[in-house]
Amino acid sequence: MLRAAAWVHWGLFRLCTGLSVRMASSGIAQKGVLANRVAVVTGSTDGIGLAIARRLAQDGAHVVVSSRKQQNVDRAVAVLQGEGLSVTGTVCHVGKAEDRERLVATAVEHCGSVDFLVCNAGVNPPVGSTLGASEQVWDKILDVNLKAPALLLSQLLPHMENRRGAVILISSIAAYMPHVELGAYNVSKTALLGLTRTLALELAPKDIRVNCLVPGVIETDFSKVIHKNKAFWKSFKENMRLQRIGQPEDCAGLVSFLCSPEASYISGENIVVAGFSPRL
Amino acid sequence: MLRAAAWVHWGLFRLCTGLSVRMASSGIAQKGVLANRVAVVTGSTDGIGLAIARRLAQDGAHVVVSSRKQQNVDRAVAVLQGEGLSVTGTVCHVGKAEDRERLVATAVEHCGSVDFLVCNAGVNPPVGSTLGASEQVWDKILDVNLKAPALLLSQLLPHMENRRGAVILISSIAAYMPHVELGAYNVSKTALLGLTRTLALELAPKDIRVNCLVPGVIETDFSKVIHKNKAFWKSFKENMRLQRIGQPEDCAGLVSFLCSPEASYISGENIVVAGFSPRL
Amino acid sequence: MLRAAAWVHWGLFRLCTGLSVRMASSGIAQKGVLANRVAVVTGSTDGIGLAIARRLAQDGAHVVVSSRKQQNVDRAVAVLQGEGLSVTGTVCHVGKAEDRERLVATAVEHCGSVDFLVCNAGVNPPVGSTLGASEQVWDKILDVNLKAPALLLSQLLPHMENRRGAVILISSIAAYMPHVELGAYNVSKTALLGLTRTLALELAPKDIRVNCLVPGVIETDFSKVIHKNKAFWKSFKENMRLQRIGQPEDCAGLVSFLCSPEASYISGENIVVAGFSPRL
Amino acid sequence: MLRAAAWVHWGLFRLCTGLSVRMASSGIAQKGVLANRVAVVTGSTDGIGLAIARRLAQDGAHVVVSSRKQQNVDRAVAVLQGEGLSVTGTVCHVGKAEDRERLVATAVEHCGSVDFLVCNAGVNPPVGSTLGASEQVWDKILDVNLKAPALLLSQLLPHMENRRGAVILISSIAAYMPHVELGAYNVSKTALLGLTRTLALELAPKDIRVNCLVPGVIETDFSKVIHKNKAFWKSFKENMRLQRIGQPEDCAGLVSFLCSPEASYISGENIVVAGFSPRL
Repeated sequence: MLRAAAWVHWGLFRLCTGLSVRMASSGIAQKGVLANRVAVVTGSTDGIGLAIARRLAQDGAHVVVSSRKQQNVDRAVAVLQGEGLSVTGTVCHVGKAEDRERLVATAVEHCGSVDFLVCNAGVNPPVGSTLGASEQVWDKILDVNLKAPALLLSQLLPHMENRRGAVILISSIAAYMPHVELGAYNVSKTALLGLTRTLALELAPKDIRVNCLVPGVIETDFSKVIHKNKAFWKSFKENMRLQRIGQPEDCAGLVSFLCSPEASYISGENIVVAGFSPRL
Repeated sequence: MLRAAAWVHWGLFRLCTGLSVRMASSGIAQKGVLANRVAVVTGSTDGIGLAIARRLAQDGAHVVVSSRKQQNVDRAVAVLQGEGLSVTGTVCHVGKAEDRERLVATAVEHCGSVDFLVCNAGVNPPVGSTLGASEQVWDKILDVNLKAPALLLSQLLPHMENRRGAVILISSIAAYMPHVELGAYNVSKTALLGLTRTLALELAPKDIRVNCLVPGVIETDFSKVIHKNKAFWKSFKENMRLQRIGQPEDCAGLVSFLCSPEASYISGENIVVAGFSPRL
Repeated sequence: MLRAAAWVHWGLFRLCTGLSVRMASSGIAQKGVLANRVAVVTGSTDGIGLAIARRLAQDGAHVVVSSRKQQNVDRAVAVLQGEGLSVTGTVCHVGKAEDRERLVATAVEHCGSVDFLVCNAGVNPPVGSTLGASEQVWDKILDVNLKAPALLLSQLLPHMENRRGAVILISSIAAYMPHVELGAYNVSKTALLGLTRTLALELAPKDIRVNCLVPGVIETDFSKVIHKNKAFWKSFKENMRLQRIGQPEDCAGLVSFLCSPEASYISGENIVVAGFSPRL
Repeated sequence: MLRAAAWVHWGLFRLCTGLSVRMASSGIAQKGVLANRVAVVTGSTDGIGLAIARRLAQDGAHVVVSSRKQQNVDRAVAVLQGEGLSVTGTVCHVGKAEDRERLVATAVEHCGSVDFLVCNAGVNPPVGSTLGASEQVWDKILDVNLKAPALLLSQLLPHMENRRGAVILISSIAAYMPHVELGAYNVSKTALLGLTRTLALELAPKDIRVNCLVPGVIETDFSKVIHKNKAFWKSFKENMRLQRIGQPEDCAGLVSFLCSPEASYISGENIVVAGFSPRL
């Protein structure tokens, strides 16, 4: 009955630490594996980020959704609330310090503290060749894809400690299989694999796990870029024996798992959701 | 509403393919994410294997448990049935062809077909140095740790096709961080990382996913071997900043996830459950 | 002048330990970076193995060449001696214990001791699917590709100690990028990556380094198998942006480097010679 | 006689493309495997960089040495010229665009064109925790360690094309084994592993290979930081079974090999020089 014991332990932990959420959009207690937990998801008004926000809310968490444009935030909040989910929205360009501050303030104001941070916001390709990238292009990509997750987490950390929280970074299959047309983007995504591991070491004593979702080709607006190169996509699909293209929900399932107590001994891992694996 | 659609699709799929289980220990329909599904778990009468068997049964699957000794099988079956779980037991030394055949026959006889195969049976260290291993030692380790999963799967495959099944191999952190005292065992575990990937490619067209659990130091009888070397364990724990030793349930949670439709776009992955990660 | 000092140190080491070779085919002192050193190279009568044997002999080593058939051994010895190189030949099927013993005996009889072991002998694909492999197929592949290097090294080790020697295993790009038609062959090559690392740890105190050459597509009889699949080769070449197919000499250059004192702080490494890299 | 043919081919290539060097410090033809070739090495006035500069010059190349301070450049140039080596020096802070421009101009003015670029300049730790790093700390580390190699190569590329050149980046064992005290430094070094691979793909059609040296603990001023943590170093040395600490010359040997035609089919590889290997 070890398992039962573990769950009792988890329940007691919740009681003892007084985990609770000041609800933004509902006054009732939430159900589900993430009930009474709070998640901040960046870049979450469409595609993979929206699927993750929806899923964590379906699991019972209160979710703070955000992206760069007010109208996208408004639309996503309306859609998710229409599904009966508990969400708050705020505009946030993660590359801007003041936007990150506002995101943190919004989350703390509505929810008191934060359990999960999912960093999905990123500069999407195409960015051209690595050597064609100017200093400005490098800065833009590194600012948003690499530095922003670290800086946002620094700001959020005082509100996440000792809550058995989790951080999920979002890399890309290009981290393992660089695509020659994606240049500096490939590099930023490889860097995230390293960021995951060093953050995991750093935050272990604070009981915060850090893992990384590495999506393959997922059906989103971005994936259309890859599909356009029909010859590439055909040979990729054949060589990897892909049976279908991935869906944003495939990514959300893993994030839900990684946030849950099920994954409480998994940290520092980069996990590929691609229908195949590119590495040992 | 893509997610809802996906679940409807999943439900319809179940209806259409007539997924059902001739129950061994209960006549009632099972509940849970793996309801009406059948799992074969080798080496499942104690430690990590038992935790996996229990968890898949708690998820609603009917589980065929097995290991080398009848009395261990009897005890595990009694315990799990005592918890209200649906299980069947049979003796199986996975290194023996006739035992594998009997395991397959038992599963098919009771359940009609099989959805999940979890290959946990293995020769445990200590095995001494690599170069000290005789041909007989190599054969014993490779037979049980490497060949047996492939051969058992070959025999079980006709009963697993087109059911959206999953195979889970069990490697070890020693696959990535060889321990000098574990010799050929390290090598067999690295080989499993490759077996996972080649099987994933091979079985993709049959809609069977293949993934691998890579446990770190988990509290089992086996782990006591590692704990005995107090200096090693101390420095390992400090360097990796481990907050606790893993529990068999930590492994079972990942296997449950990998069997579920949540993980339907994850295949070929080796996933580490160790409290840290040893690789990029 | 640290570098000069290192080389003086190396020279003194040679004098002090009395490194010398009882020459089989020449009475004169050899020149070159591997002068007065002895190398055993299995599977060395054609392709990559022959190129390695030639190169180590050109570097000044005395080389023991071997493969399964007497006439191939005779031809290779004649060719290499015709080039003025110092070689001895013996028949050896590395999967057979008595053949390994004879190889060790031949090397020791002619040369007194051995500095380098290059394990090139292997079962070549095609071997079909992983799950189509019978126990006999698995045994044949694992015996020759995986166990033989370890067992041969065990037998040779007493003659290699404390000579600053090196072992080179030969894996394949299929270790990192499994090809679906190569089944158990892929797995045996992944296992070698692990064997390299565990042997490196084990032999470090004996001052023997262990590394692994991981060839990509190299122009040999074997590579014709891959070339036949024109569509695969075309997409592989394009995706990896290969400018040419590799030559056996490309592999020999790395092995020469890894045997030399230049590589004296490199051990446990798997190094890819493929015109691209498949891993981080 | 393939090998001989390859060397004839190489010789012809040199003749045909008129590879030659306008010598800065000598009017006579150079000998050695890199004779009449030009190498730019950043951060090359002490430690690993100086050892690389010396070695490439010993191999016959003309070497442009550089680092941030004029007096260090002057000293290194004097030392190397005193050893009879052909070198030019210039001050270069690789994080500054104008310094990179001056370095390129100096190299082109003295040598006409450039064959090899070795990017050794970097911000050394200690940098503290990842989450303690301010935006300014991130910028400093990424500017120098990650962006500078890419931007310098962009500027140098027009002078490197079609000369069978090579680029060597310098990462760190911390790329694979993040040290918790090194924070953003770890991440920048992991990013370099990805930069190596995307640059290798990008430059393959221009016949420029890109590889990466991954040093372990090498005896330099920097390594003293690690040595200070006596407990860490002791357990690291024991666990990895290190027989000695590495020397800058150990790194220089690999770089020499990677620049030579011997390595002409190796590109995109990250190669560890650490006395052990941290990855498969």
